[in-house]
Amino acid sequence: MAIPLFTTISSYSTTTTTHRHRYLHHPIFSYNKLLCCASSSSPPVSSNFVGSSEAGVCLSIGTHLIPHPDKVEKGGEDAFFVSSHGGGVIAVADGVSGWAEKDVNPALFSRELMTNASIFVQDQEVDYNPRNLIRKAHAATTSIGSATAVVAMLERNGTLKIANVGDCGLRVVRKGQIVYSTSPQEHYFDCPYQLSSEAIGQTFLDATVTTVELMEEDTIVVGSDGLFDNVFDREIVSVLSSCNNVSDAAKALANLAHNHSKDSSFDSPYSQEARTQGFDVPWWKKIMGMKLIGGKLDDVTVIVGQVKSSLSS
Amino acid sequence: MAIPLFTTISSYSTTTTTHRHRYLHHPIFSYNKLLCCASSSSPPVSSNFVGSSEAGVCLSIGTHLIPHPDKVEKGGEDAFFVSSHGGGVIAVADGVSGWAEKDVNPALFSRELMTNASIFVQDQEVDYNPRNLIRKAHAATTSIGSATAVVAMLERNGTLKIANVGDCGLRVVRKGQIVYSTSPQEHYFDCPYQLSSEAIGQTFLDATVTTVELMEEDTIVVGSDGLFDNVFDREIVSVLSSCNNVSDAAKALANLAHNHSKDSSFDSPYSQEARTQGFDVPWWKKIMGMKLIGGKLDDVTVIVGQVKSSLSS
Repeated sequence: MAIPLFTTISSYSTTTTTHRHRYLHHPIFSYNKLLCCASSSSPPVSSNFVGSSEAGVCLSIGTHLIPHPDKVEKGGEDAFFVSSHGGGVIAVADGVSGWAEKDVNPALFSRELMTNASIFVQDQEVDYNPRNLIRKAHAATTSIGSATAVVAMLERNGTLKIANVGDCGLRVVRKGQIVYSTSPQEHYFDCPYQLSSEAIGQTFLDATVTTVELMEEDTIVVGSDGLFDNVFDREIVSVLSSCNNVSDAAKALANLAHNHSKDSSFDSPYSQEARTQGFDVPWWKKIMGMKLIGGKLDDVTVIVGQVKSSLSS
Repeated sequence: MAIPLFTTISSYSTTTTTHRHRYLHHPIFSYNKLLCCASSSSPPVSSNFVGSSEAGVCLSIGTHLIPHPDKVEKGGEDAFFVSSHGGGVIAVADGVSGWAEKDVNPALFSRELMTNASIFVQDQEVDYNPRNLIRKAHAATTSIGSATAVVAMLERNGTLKIANVGDCGLRVVRKGQIVYSTSPQEHYFDCPYQLSSEAIGQTFLDATVTTVELMEEDTIVVGSDGLFDNVFDREIVSVLSSCNNVSDAAKALANLAHNHSKDSSFDSPYSQEARTQGFDVPWWKKIMGMKLIGGKLDDVTVIVGQVKSSLSS
């Protein structure tokens, strides 16, 4: 996650906690069809779920989370949850790391946001609408901090409803090509729109809200910017084509992003965007043929969902 | 438009016609709220329309079409139509130029497709659904040829419904950044998905179907690949910020694309994509520091729509 906060607050001190919830392993999740709510693990989280067997389509889901190398002990600052409610729900949040400078654990906000989202996913007021889910989850989050977030909810008829605030992302891959892609929102380079504990931050009203009509065998890839800053879309397509199931695909994509993030010679999407935005090495290095290059160290969350007929799930 | 056809047929000979329809200037358009249906002109088409005054939002629309420099006499092979039906309808089709090798005028198919779309835009079976409109317009098109096409229909509540086959495109610009972008579909580099007179081509079933929730003052940019192959997204945002109205914006974007298309030293989106896909100059030129570069000569169609409250239109 990008360093800059889009806020300034007085210092706030808290302790770091890591947690990991799974279906029925935590009382607050027992009343809904939550499949997985995770924010950290070492080794990384990896799972494979298929939605329920009502008529229509549903998602087969694999997940993988790799924390930033310097944040392994604390589990990183990404959080996510997946649920089989409706045709399947996927949400990813990425805590803004700049809060660490203010002695705030950046993971707390993203984790609480995702926990709240998992609580409200079946709420009547949410009405299976991802913008409403962001609204209610954000309103219920009391931690200090901020996070980017993407929420995707599949209807049984194949309509994928997406609400996105900031630079988490989602891709739809159909027959070997990307047919839908979210666009990141940012105030300026590396400072994304973010849901925040502070009034200056963004809200559900700032979410980009879209739908995509999915087809059986479509694959969706949802992730934090740690994926999309380090892996090109063409690589995502290539990795998916080489994997046999969603768990393997999520793991392979996360590993690729993690490896690229540590590779100082990789001309990543992040470094290319940085140069496009005018950031580069000093002129005297440029005339020696050098340029700003390298992966971007970050937490990496990857969730891969494949659209299946409920009958085949 | 890309050269390759996704078909092979026996030669077919026809003559070229150019036409330009406007509201009430042609009897077939008198029963619906068609604002403009154009395929060619010299000088280029440029217009400015605002949707009707029913409650909700509507589009203020500017259009500009510049034919390929070698196709000015025949008006190029792009076609489009705009209508004030609902909150506003925008459609662009781009005739596949490869048909010229078979003595078929590539403009005929795209023009007839757009004319048919304008006829069916209020059809009950279409039900204000862009995929249905593509289905009916395609089924009614009798010309030999093929075309890419994008259709966007704005509902009064702000929902923009989009169906896209091939590499025409659409961007939504909000507060100085692109928040939505279509993804081109292609069989391989420079051979897009295409609606065709031949069975081997694509149909409405291949359309990528999406919706975007628009806000007042959002700007949408719809165009043929002649725009998006020659103008970067960041340039689109920059041009929009410097224009006072939709007509000027459409004209400025089309002129920029046209100028880039003729610039053999411009490292265009098209040339960058070509290199990414493995096309480049021979190795012996590469070691001399040369690379595949330049704009892409093509017809350029640009339609700019700005979301307005009907009360302010």
